[in-house]
Amino acid sequence: MAGGGFDNNVPTKFPKLSVKWPKGSDHLKAERAKATFNVDAVSKFVFGDDYLNRVKKIVPILESEPAFEKTQRYYQSRYQRIAHAYEKDKRMVELAEEFKWDDEDKRIVNVLYDQVSPYSLHYLMFIPTLRNQCNEEQRELFYERAIRNEIIGCYAQTELGHGSNVQGLETTATYIPETNEFELHSPHLTSSKWWIGSLAKTANHAAVMARLIIHGKDYGPHPFCVQIRSMEDHRPLSGVTVGDIGPKFGYVTIDNGFLMFDHYRVPHISFLAKFAQIKPGSGEYVKPANARLSYGTMVLSRANIVNGSGTTLARGATVAVRYSAVRRQFVDSNEPRKWNNQVIETPVIDYTMQQYRIFSTVATVYALLFTGRKMIQLYHLNQKEMENGNLGLLADLHATSSGLKSLVSTITIEALEDCRRACGGHGFSLFSGLGYAYQDYLPLVTFEGDNYLLTQQTARYLLKTYRSVVSGKAEPNEHNLTITYLTEYLKSPTAAMPVSTGAELLNPEILLTAFGYRAAYGITQLIEQIDNQGRSWNSVLVDINRVSRSHSAYVIVHNFFAALQQASKTELAVPERKVLQTMAYLFALHMMEKDMTEFLISDYITSTQAKLIREQTLELIAQIRPNAVSLVDAFALPDYYLASALGRYDGDVYESLVDFVEKEPLNQTIVIDSYEKYIKPFVYAGLKRQKNESKL
Amino acid sequence: MAGGGFDNNVPTKFPKLSVKWPKGSDHLKAERAKATFNVDAVSKFVFGDDYLNRVKKIVPILESEPAFEKTQRYYQSRYQRIAHAYEKDKRMVELAEEFKWDDEDKRIVNVLYDQVSPYSLHYLMFIPTLRNQCNEEQRELFYERAIRNEIIGCYAQTELGHGSNVQGLETTATYIPETNEFELHSPHLTSSKWWIGSLAKTANHAAVMARLIIHGKDYGPHPFCVQIRSMEDHRPLSGVTVGDIGPKFGYVTIDNGFLMFDHYRVPHISFLAKFAQIKPGSGEYVKPANARLSYGTMVLSRANIVNGSGTTLARGATVAVRYSAVRRQFVDSNEPRKWNNQVIETPVIDYTMQQYRIFSTVATVYALLFTGRKMIQLYHLNQKEMENGNLGLLADLHATSSGLKSLVSTITIEALEDCRRACGGHGFSLFSGLGYAYQDYLPLVTFEGDNYLLTQQTARYLLKTYRSVVSGKAEPNEHNLTITYLTEYLKSPTAAMPVSTGAELLNPEILLTAFGYRAAYGITQLIEQIDNQGRSWNSVLVDINRVSRSHSAYVIVHNFFAALQQASKTELAVPERKVLQTMAYLFALHMMEKDMTEFLISDYITSTQAKLIREQTLELIAQIRPNAVSLVDAFALPDYYLASALGRYDGDVYESLVDFVEKEPLNQTIVIDSYEKYIKPFVYAGLKRQKNESKL
Repeated sequence: MAGGGFDNNVPTKFPKLSVKWPKGSDHLKAERAKATFNVDAVSKFVFGDDYLNRVKKIVPILESEPAFEKTQRYYQSRYQRIAHAYEKDKRMVELAEEFKWDDEDKRIVNVLYDQVSPYSLHYLMFIPTLRNQCNEEQRELFYERAIRNEIIGCYAQTELGHGSNVQGLETTATYIPETNEFELHSPHLTSSKWWIGSLAKTANHAAVMARLIIHGKDYGPHPFCVQIRSMEDHRPLSGVTVGDIGPKFGYVTIDNGFLMFDHYRVPHISFLAKFAQIKPGSGEYVKPANARLSYGTMVLSRANIVNGSGTTLARGATVAVRYSAVRRQFVDSNEPRKWNNQVIETPVIDYTMQQYRIFSTVATVYALLFTGRKMIQLYHLNQKEMENGNLGLLADLHATSSGLKSLVSTITIEALEDCRRACGGHGFSLFSGLGYAYQDYLPLVTFEGDNYLLTQQTARYLLKTYRSVVSGKAEPNEHNLTITYLTEYLKSPTAAMPVSTGAELLNPEILLTAFGYRAAYGITQLIEQIDNQGRSWNSVLVDINRVSRSHSAYVIVHNFFAALQQASKTELAVPERKVLQTMAYLFALHMMEKDMTEFLISDYITSTQAKLIREQTLELIAQIRPNAVSLVDAFALPDYYLASALGRYDGDVYESLVDFVEKEPLNQTIVIDSYEKYIKPFVYAGLKRQKNESKL
Repeated sequence: MAGGGFDNNVPTKFPKLSVKWPKGSDHLKAERAKATFNVDAVSKFVFGDDYLNRVKKIVPILESEPAFEKTQRYYQSRYQRIAHAYEKDKRMVELAEEFKWDDEDKRIVNVLYDQVSPYSLHYLMFIPTLRNQCNEEQRELFYERAIRNEIIGCYAQTELGHGSNVQGLETTATYIPETNEFELHSPHLTSSKWWIGSLAKTANHAAVMARLIIHGKDYGPHPFCVQIRSMEDHRPLSGVTVGDIGPKFGYVTIDNGFLMFDHYRVPHISFLAKFAQIKPGSGEYVKPANARLSYGTMVLSRANIVNGSGTTLARGATVAVRYSAVRRQFVDSNEPRKWNNQVIETPVIDYTMQQYRIFSTVATVYALLFTGRKMIQLYHLNQKEMENGNLGLLADLHATSSGLKSLVSTITIEALEDCRRACGGHGFSLFSGLGYAYQDYLPLVTFEGDNYLLTQQTARYLLKTYRSVVSGKAEPNEHNLTITYLTEYLKSPTAAMPVSTGAELLNPEILLTAFGYRAAYGITQLIEQIDNQGRSWNSVLVDINRVSRSHSAYVIVHNFFAALQQASKTELAVPERKVLQTMAYLFALHMMEKDMTEFLISDYITSTQAKLIREQTLELIAQIRPNAVSLVDAFALPDYYLASALGRYDGDVYESLVDFVEKEPLNQTIVIDSYEKYIKPFVYAGLKRQKNESKL
């Protein structure tokens, strides 16, 4: 213990002083008074009453639950955070029962809590796998117990040496006819299951993907449901090696694990037999039906990523915009800012560079939310069609969802980080609420299909569709945007943008045609390289990525304009429609600016038009300025969700930072132990020296 | 404690298995055999013998010192990491004495250790401030004791409400003639010093920037050296409130603090009086001489940032390239990869998209290292000139260093993160060695001049220089690149790039002219807006940022080509020159690609030429492929520095990951406490249910 005979356990408190006038809340009140539209009306249009009412009901419950307290995570170690997340998982089961939460309520609770936890993969992957893959007997044995949390599971696919290439997995499951068992085995170190969420310390069961071997023949990866730990004492069973894969850049609160098998025997019933089957004894393999139906699930999961990205980025935008309205920096000598007739430093939201950075992100959030909503609609439409045996929508929807997942997560992580930077120095404090958000969103660019790999799927479909359109085999239909823009393009492949003033850009048709042209042009260039120049697939991967991005940009821009056009006057009154229309234009022009080269390189636009696009973007930004704070208020994110000193609704940023700081563990004692060991020796040597010198 | 009567303290061990053949080290050996140049010769050219020899001497020392052990930080909590960093600081003093390390040795030790620590700001800011600002008496009282660590200090400038705008600081230091003292005071909550490194728990002194008030007159911010804690027991002195500002996104190992004064009196000698002086009693203020000389220090600090960025990014590139040569993914069915006549999955380094992402970063590292070297040379040249009373170099050097700091740190953080992503899933593990590197580099885009703010300084200088060149008042000289390219541009402002084949692009003169044209064109456009269209400074901030970026890109490209052209044949033999020349071309074309819009919008290049640039980039990348691993080997980063499972020199990546994982604290026991509290109740309910059901 440190200390020189005084009480060391005295927390540090700030003096009771006010911040330099005007306060943050004064600024935000003034901003809100400037809005030209009704915030609640926009929230309602974007999210719907049902969602908003659920949030309103749930937030006070979570705020009063210690297991759901969100700010302590900023101070905790990895191990404390994991333990707290376990507590949340258990409490969640109890609360769900008490308040009769349905699946949508539970989803919202998890969005608000905003952190993975040890049971996450049990719910997100293990249970859905069992639901889809169990036969009747297995349903009772595994699925029913899993939903009561009597067995806790994980989904063990990825291996140390294999991620995206599922066909290359090394773990084997060899059928042993004599005992009607499977022998699970990890032949190499690289065969170890790896990255498996909820596995390291939590799960007692695992859905394992392993190569099925029967009578020496390799049938490729198949799913097994396998007990890995004792139900009595949680010890790994003999033949199973399991543990944690160590610290990560984010996802601190989940126990990603590894799993190896040493000739580990499991009974016949472990083979999940809803689709393929293996006859006991003979080991005869009965093939599954068409697996394409499972593409639907991927579409839903990607639609959820797009939607979730909208929410995550809304968080970044909310924090950045509100704090920019509060944070003042420099007196702009040309246009000094006054408050009650006194010159104050200019709030950073008044600098055009700051506006340029953060307003485009606000527009992007709206774009993502509308596209997420649209994709979920399409998913349901497609499910219905498939039930009627119609697979006509599937290919486009699947390809588009791949491209969108890639583009949206790339855009989101970049914009989210820019929101953090736009908060200046305090953005680096965890109390901004944006640090963990960044770390926990980040894996999305890699998993659920690596963002670069995914674009190959999209491009393959686009090339195929192009060929169909050219050969007259593809008919335009309202749900297939690809055919629409390709058909349009082929009518006039040397078109140019018919715009000579900035104002003419503010036209959905003009903008959509430009995005369609760009996408189609990229596809033709790719076709040219592959078909006529004999280039290999590998050699054109860079262009493949560009084509997928162009296609996805078209889709998002389209969905934004379409959402506004399709809204009735009751759904969207004039003032709200106007501000959202401005957002849509800003988003489209922002996306054009980001990829201006693509538009210029096809000669669809001229350098003069490129300059118009830049100027018009700045015009829109100036128009948005008075509505900026209200536009993020309309995202309706409660302070509980934000857990941010900088982004709180009332704007009292600095008072809040001080409150957070007083809770810092280092501030609970006066002197830390390290003082005695590492500082004092030098200091005391100095005191001794001074004493000796004064004696001389 | 968890456990059901068994010994729970059993570490998890992996079975002794090999990885799937071929091993990582087999891959890297094969890669190294392909190199067309001598790795050591390139290292020597880039870093010089002296540096390389020092590293060779120092690394084994650090490797054997527990205080310098680098991998345990991946598992430690914030508090453990801080304590370990204190230990390093103390041990460093002892080792420096033992091995007679000079300043350059110590700098290298800190580069290799690669983590800020509680004493960092004492050395980096407190001591230099005292060196520059103390008069003779203060030198003995403060500086001499500081270098013996008898007093430990920090540099307290930034406040809760004020970062970049130093003139707006709120803390006051009022001269009290009666007692010949100063009274330090924090009038508002926002006046609290904030973000001050080494302050929270370490420092007993602070160099405080406070507004000097004498007889009611405000002289603006001045530096004071102030004792804040007792030398006896380290308690904050009465009138001082001090503590930690809480957890951050990175910089975990330093105690950034806050500091408030409540009418706190300090003696007259606290006012650092090398420049301005205050006469005791009368309080007469004696003005300092020209402060422009201090710009030299800023140049050096920014040159060090550029150099340091090269090293940090070299780390990213080394890890990404080596691991890409080891990591295999999919069999490319068009061009199946064989090893000893057997088909293996293709190493990801063979996919063009991966090459495109990481090889351009390798080239960027070389570019940053050469520009860093050049800036340090210019700094010394300028210091010499200034000593002779010649300020002719200062303005350009200062403006360029601002722009470079902004561009280089923006590029570095983006490319570093892309290196991490290029490692796929395992890039998200802290064992990649890139997570902390990212978190600790990140503040650089905000501090030492926010990257957006800084570009205004550069642009101001560029506009001024343009006006001088136009009016014939600026003469070209070899050290002023700005005047050179502006003069060039003004000779033919409607020039176009004289290139019709990809090969013609491989010409330093062609490329430099293009970069110069782009920069100059941007400046003229800005001048047009401000001078002729009457636009305010605030309204053109976006273009200001573009202009600074264009200028800085020109400088970096110039320095790369110049470094090669100026090298003699002994310094750089043909094979090494050739590979570095290819790197220089790739860097230049990569920078053109990144900002292609800027080149297109000025009509200096056509869309056809833009396509040539893209194609030629891919050509260069293909040429580099056989040398990729050797090009990162030439960065000469020891495994100690990398602390990375993925980037180690021998390539045995998976074996290394497994070693790291075995040390994970969660793997030292079989069952964690949370099992009892949060999992077992559900599981046991299930067991009970089963028992009851079997009884029925």
